[in-house]
Amino acid sequence: MSIYIDPAVALSLRGYEMPERLGFGTAMAPVMFRAVCQDGCWSNGELIPYEPLSVDPAAKVLHYAQSCFEGMKAYRTGEGIALFRPEKNAERMAYSAKRLCMPPVPESLFLDGVRTVAAYCANLVPGNSGESLYLRPFLIGTQADLTVSASTSYEFYVIASPSEAYHSGNMRLWVEREDARAAVGGTGDAKVGGNYAGSLLSIGRLKERGYDQSLWLNPADRSSVDELSGMNFFAVIDGALHTPALNGSILEGITRFSLIDLARNLGYKVVEGTIHIDELLGQVASGTCTEAFACGTAAIISPISVIGDDGGSYKLSQVPGPVAQHLRQALLDIQEGRVEDHFNWMLSVETVEV
Amino acid sequence: MSIYIDPAVALSLRGYEMPERLGFGTAMAPVMFRAVCQDGCWSNGELIPYEPLSVDPAAKVLHYAQSCFEGMKAYRTGEGIALFRPEKNAERMAYSAKRLCMPPVPESLFLDGVRTVAAYCANLVPGNSGESLYLRPFLIGTQADLTVSASTSYEFYVIASPSEAYHSGNMRLWVEREDARAAVGGTGDAKVGGNYAGSLLSIGRLKERGYDQSLWLNPADRSSVDELSGMNFFAVIDGALHTPALNGSILEGITRFSLIDLARNLGYKVVEGTIHIDELLGQVASGTCTEAFACGTAAIISPISVIGDDGGSYKLSQVPGPVAQHLRQALLDIQEGRVEDHFNWMLSVETVEV
Repeated sequence: MSIYIDPAVALSLRGYEMPERLGFGTAMAPVMFRAVCQDGCWSNGELIPYEPLSVDPAAKVLHYAQSCFEGMKAYRTGEGIALFRPEKNAERMAYSAKRLCMPPVPESLFLDGVRTVAAYCANLVPGNSGESLYLRPFLIGTQADLTVSASTSYEFYVIASPSEAYHSGNMRLWVEREDARAAVGGTGDAKVGGNYAGSLLSIGRLKERGYDQSLWLNPADRSSVDELSGMNFFAVIDGALHTPALNGSILEGITRFSLIDLARNLGYKVVEGTIHIDELLGQVASGTCTEAFACGTAAIISPISVIGDDGGSYKLSQVPGPVAQHLRQALLDIQEGRVEDHFNWMLSVETVEV
Repeated sequence: MSIYIDPAVALSLRGYEMPERLGFGTAMAPVMFRAVCQDGCWSNGELIPYEPLSVDPAAKVLHYAQSCFEGMKAYRTGEGIALFRPEKNAERMAYSAKRLCMPPVPESLFLDGVRTVAAYCANLVPGNSGESLYLRPFLIGTQADLTVSASTSYEFYVIASPSEAYHSGNMRLWVEREDARAAVGGTGDAKVGGNYAGSLLSIGRLKERGYDQSLWLNPADRSSVDELSGMNFFAVIDGALHTPALNGSILEGITRFSLIDLARNLGYKVVEGTIHIDELLGQVASGTCTEAFACGTAAIISPISVIGDDGGSYKLSQVPGPVAQHLRQALLDIQEGRVEDHFNWMLSVETVEV
C-alpha cells in the first residue's frame, strides 16, 4: 500500500533536538504514523507530525478502555537501523485486538507503520548499547457512543521515543498477595490497558516499602508466579533457567520466547513450568536459586536483587548473575548487529534522509 | 467555588435541536463541564461547548486505561429538574479513582459539574416516563509518558445525552462460563474502563446466539452469580427478592442499594447472599424462581425473559413480573416526582435559561 508522507514531516524532523537525558518514553519523536478503520475498512497509512489527537469526549477508548498496544525498538546496528522480530509484535497486537473485539491491524499495515517511523527517525536512534528508539504502536476505539459495545471506528498510531532501557540498576520485587493483575478468563494474555491500570495501586504501595515492581501471582492458584507488570520472570535454580509456563494470564513476551531459544542455543537447560512462590523463596534463602531477572522489550534483561514478602526479604546471591549477564550480552549482540544473526530475527530498515 | 461559564455556551444551547429518536448515549448535549488536576491541585470548573478533546498520543489513558466514570440521570419532575442521589455517584467515583491511583474528584466539584450541566441543559431533559438526560462524569489520566505509572495530570468532564432507558423490552441472558469480567483482587468493584473492555468479546459471542447480555459469574468460585455488564442482578425466589451480596468483584450499583431499601419499605423480603447459578437455573425450571430482572441507572429495571446456558435455555414464568413492575413504578414515581420523596433521595436543580 502507498504511504502518504505529509510534507510537514521534513520540517518537524529537521528541527528536532535530541534530549540531553533520554529517560524512557518521555521525549517523543516529532512524527507519527496513522491509519484509520471505519466499519472494518482500513485507510492507507500516513506519516504526519506528532500532534495531539482529536478525541470525541464520548469515544469508547476513554470510557470502556477499548485500546491495545505494542512495545518494540529500532536498534542502531553497525550497518544502519534494524527492528527485532516486528512480525511477532504484529501477531500479538492482532491477538490483543481480537480479545477486545477490535479489528486487527493487518500485518502489512503494522509493518508499514513501524518501518516508516524507524526509517524517517533513523537519526533519532541513540547509539549507546542498551539505548534505542522505542516504538509504541497502539489501536484505540474512537466511536462517540456511550453504549457498552465495540466501536465502529478505530485509529492506529505508531509513536516513538529515543530511550534508555526501562530499568537501570537492579530491581527489588514485592510478592503481591492482595491484588491481581488479571483474571482467569480475563485479559492477562493480551496487551491491553486494563491490565496496567489495575496494577498501579500495587506499584504505589510497594514503592512506599522501598520496592520497584510487583511480582504477580497466578489468579487461579494465588501461589505460583505469573509475571511482573510488562515483564516476564526468570530464575536460575540449580543451574537451570526456569520461567512460568504460559497459562492464559501471562503475557507472552517476545523477549521471553526469544531468550528461551537463545539460552537453549547457548547450552542452558530451560524449564517452562510452575514456579511456586513459597518454594522459590525457600530456594533463594538456601542458595539453590542463585539469580533471577526480568525481561521485556523495554527492560531488556534486568537483574533482580531482592524479593520481599510479608514474611521477610529474600536476597539473591548473584546480582547481576552470570547467566543474566551472558544472555543480556548475547541478545544485545544480535540486536545491535555485533554478531551474525543466525536466528534471522533482525529486519533491516532502509533509512530516509529528509 | 466559582464556575466559569464560557460565553459560547448560550449559542451552543440555543442552536441545539433534540434528536427525533433518542436512543441511549448517542446524541450528545452541546455543552460539557471540565476541570483539570495537575500534581494533585484541582482547577475551578468551567462549562464549555461540547468539542473534541485534545489528547497527547502518549497520554496514560490511551495506553494504560487510567480512567473511571459514573452514570447518572437528570429527571424531569413536576416541579423542574432533579438528580437522584448524586452524592453517591461522587463517593463511588472517588473510590474508583483511588483504585487506579487517580486523585479523587472532590465531592463539591463533582456536584458542581453534574448540577451545572443539568441546570443549563434543562430544556434537553426529555419528558416521557423512563426518559431522562443521562449524565456521564469521567476522569482521565492525561500525562504524556509511556512509563507504567500514575499520571501527574488529569481531566474531569461531565457530558450529557438525552436518552431513553438503556434497554427496552425483555433481556435474554447467557451464563458466561468461559470469560471473567473481573479478578479476585482486581477492579470489579470500581467503575473503570478495563472491566468493560474485557466483556465485549463475551457480549459479541452471545449476540450471535440470540442473547443480549452476559450473566457474569464470581471469579473466585466460578459458580455463583455476580452481575451483568453495568447492571446488577435480582431474582424473585419463593416470593422473596434475592440479589448477590457484595464480594469485591461486584460493582455496588446505586440503583441496587436504593431498590433494596425501597423494596423493604414496600414490605418485600430482600436477601443479599450467594446465588449459585445451577441452583438458580433449577429454580427457574421448577417455577420456584418466578421472575428475574437487571437494574442500573441506565437500565432502570429491565425484566429478564430467558437465561441460556450450555445445558439449555431457561424461561422465566413472569415477564415482566409483578415485583419488577411494582418496583420499577415505585422508583420512577420518586425519580419523576409523582410521589413524596420520603427517602430524601432527590436533589432539585435550579435551572438556568440561556
